[in-house]
Amino acid sequence: MRRTSAQLADGREIIYFDRPDAPERVLTDPRELSAVSTAAQMRRDPVLDEWVIMATHRQDRTLHPPTSECPLCPSRNGRQTEVPSPDYDVVVFENRFPSLSTNATGGEHTGLPVEHAPGVGRCEVVCFTPDHDASLGSLEPDYARLVVEAWADRTTALSALPGIEQVFCFQNRGRAIGVTLEHPHGQIYAYPFVTPRTRQMLGNAAKHAARTGHNLFADVLAGERDSGDRVIAESAHWTAFVPAAARWPVEVHVYPHRRVPDIPSLTDQERDDFVYLYLDVLTRLDALYDSALPYVAAWHQAPLTADAEHAYLHLQICSIQRAADKLKYLAGSEAGMGAFITDVLPEDVASRLRAASPVVT
Amino acid sequence: MRRTSAQLADGREIIYFDRPDAPERVLTDPRELSAVSTAAQMRRDPVLDEWVIMATHRQDRTLHPPTSECPLCPSRNGRQTEVPSPDYDVVVFENRFPSLSTNATGGEHTGLPVEHAPGVGRCEVVCFTPDHDASLGSLEPDYARLVVEAWADRTTALSALPGIEQVFCFQNRGRAIGVTLEHPHGQIYAYPFVTPRTRQMLGNAAKHAARTGHNLFADVLAGERDSGDRVIAESAHWTAFVPAAARWPVEVHVYPHRRVPDIPSLTDQERDDFVYLYLDVLTRLDALYDSALPYVAAWHQAPLTADAEHAYLHLQICSIQRAADKLKYLAGSEAGMGAFITDVLPEDVASRLRAASPVVT
Repeated sequence: MRRTSAQLADGREIIYFDRPDAPERVLTDPRELSAVSTAAQMRRDPVLDEWVIMATHRQDRTLHPPTSECPLCPSRNGRQTEVPSPDYDVVVFENRFPSLSTNATGGEHTGLPVEHAPGVGRCEVVCFTPDHDASLGSLEPDYARLVVEAWADRTTALSALPGIEQVFCFQNRGRAIGVTLEHPHGQIYAYPFVTPRTRQMLGNAAKHAARTGHNLFADVLAGERDSGDRVIAESAHWTAFVPAAARWPVEVHVYPHRRVPDIPSLTDQERDDFVYLYLDVLTRLDALYDSALPYVAAWHQAPLTADAEHAYLHLQICSIQRAADKLKYLAGSEAGMGAFITDVLPEDVASRLRAASPVVT
Repeated sequence: MRRTSAQLADGREIIYFDRPDAPERVLTDPRELSAVSTAAQMRRDPVLDEWVIMATHRQDRTLHPPTSECPLCPSRNGRQTEVPSPDYDVVVFENRFPSLSTNATGGEHTGLPVEHAPGVGRCEVVCFTPDHDASLGSLEPDYARLVVEAWADRTTALSALPGIEQVFCFQNRGRAIGVTLEHPHGQIYAYPFVTPRTRQMLGNAAKHAARTGHNLFADVLAGERDSGDRVIAESAHWTAFVPAAARWPVEVHVYPHRRVPDIPSLTDQERDDFVYLYLDVLTRLDALYDSALPYVAAWHQAPLTADAEHAYLHLQICSIQRAADKLKYLAGSEAGMGAFITDVLPEDVASRLRAASPVVT
């Protein structure tokens, strides 16, 4: 893997992750760009005791441009995009419309009745391939492995930034989930706080450890592997399963067999093995309804704080597609009370995903 | 208010809440109906320590029937609906596709690696008006007051059922929020557990009380009233405001000035006063984008458990409509990490809602 870093016209960083034999990349960005907004702020909701990020400059971000104007394609035929080079393998750059910014200045209100602060952090875009019409699941294993290298590199680099408490690698896929750009890509957020879900998981893991002497996540994985009813794919180092109390119509968790806190801690062998398993899982997900499944894929990594002791790296994939033509909406019970209601049994979803043949290419 | 109770063909309860001078209601349901499913179950997610409800029989529930087949309209012209009477004012009945059921039998699995139990509880539908094309906000105050009486009656009755720990009155409105029936209606869930959000709020309220000696919700209300920047409507007994750390593009909380645990504890005067304020708020919400705003309106009532000590009744209204033609989606940061990102400032939303003229009828 060859790593090349450069700056875009407005000072944002761009980093190419290329196969060793790839051509040299064009690093100069000839565009004239206005400065990126630093207005991000955050406020602490006192009722739930959670930070809420406010980024008003995102209200006008690019929405569903035609393919001919895609900002994530390489720069070709005289059209300059966010990626100056005419080609790339995997590329990461800072988001032009960031929810969080390393030099955020927002939130300097007076008289607010809640705690507030600038939205300090960093938001990056990860382009998985220059091919606008491809998908992560359609990549060759050697190629997809570059994405894992990018996640690992960015987790390490962003963790070193001042004030960062958690690095989150994720992918939103599909218009039904609100994706505004069709080009296959993921995102990375570096938060200045431990996110609510992570705090809740790790709080429960600490209680579980105090009660049983075991790691909560290791026990969950062992329970699913012992039962097998909801396992959909297994390899030497990883298991993918539908959790027994899944909230979403389609939900798959992918755990490494060895407990590690984050992606950088994975061995080469574990990374290779993950790629094979994940491509298999992604292909099954698309086979489920015979169409590209909209999903959120979220890497749960240990935060950079003291309560990370019980963390266990895992990937959570969830989809609101409850049937080929029906979506699950978060309505009163979920949005108001946090009480999820699902219309499908995890065992049935797992059985259908096991039966869904990965497309042979 | 005149209350009349009867049974539907499959044994479900139906309760009419009528103005005193309304005609007698037809109580006999001549339909032949199969028994309601009792398959509801719930499983405890060990990672988040939350119950998830599973109701597979809901997968095939009625979706967007044409108005001529609406099951919530009164029974007229030879067509039998869920409401046997040819007219009604406000009517409540048990859901034909319940997420929770008083005689639930689901969840009797063997070998599940998580705690599980039948989904014991009750789900009710509240029809606000027989007029299919009306809305709650379009009702006259005296009429809308019947809805408050229905909420109060059902909260008291459902709280008395064995095993119930929390009663939740709510309204989902609009297809964008997943509403499957257009007829103006709300719902009531009686849960056999304290919901995750309530548990979190009351946990924070207990900590706040220990630290400050004050009630958390009373302090939030006082802070918003003192500031005034986000208040959109006020009356003698209630204040409606956009919370300073709102998560949703449109979010309004309505608090009574007097701390009460639940709707049944409101005085007649407070109920009257609420109706006037709420109709005003609902009209402003629809004026915001000049169209019927999709929203979830959620009543936060005290649960029936020991941790209810710090509870404070309030209504939360939230909408995913972030512009006239744009929706906010819960994607990676929200669905994966519970970290909300919003594109609008609460002060701006409040200002637009204050300026939105309630339509004069």
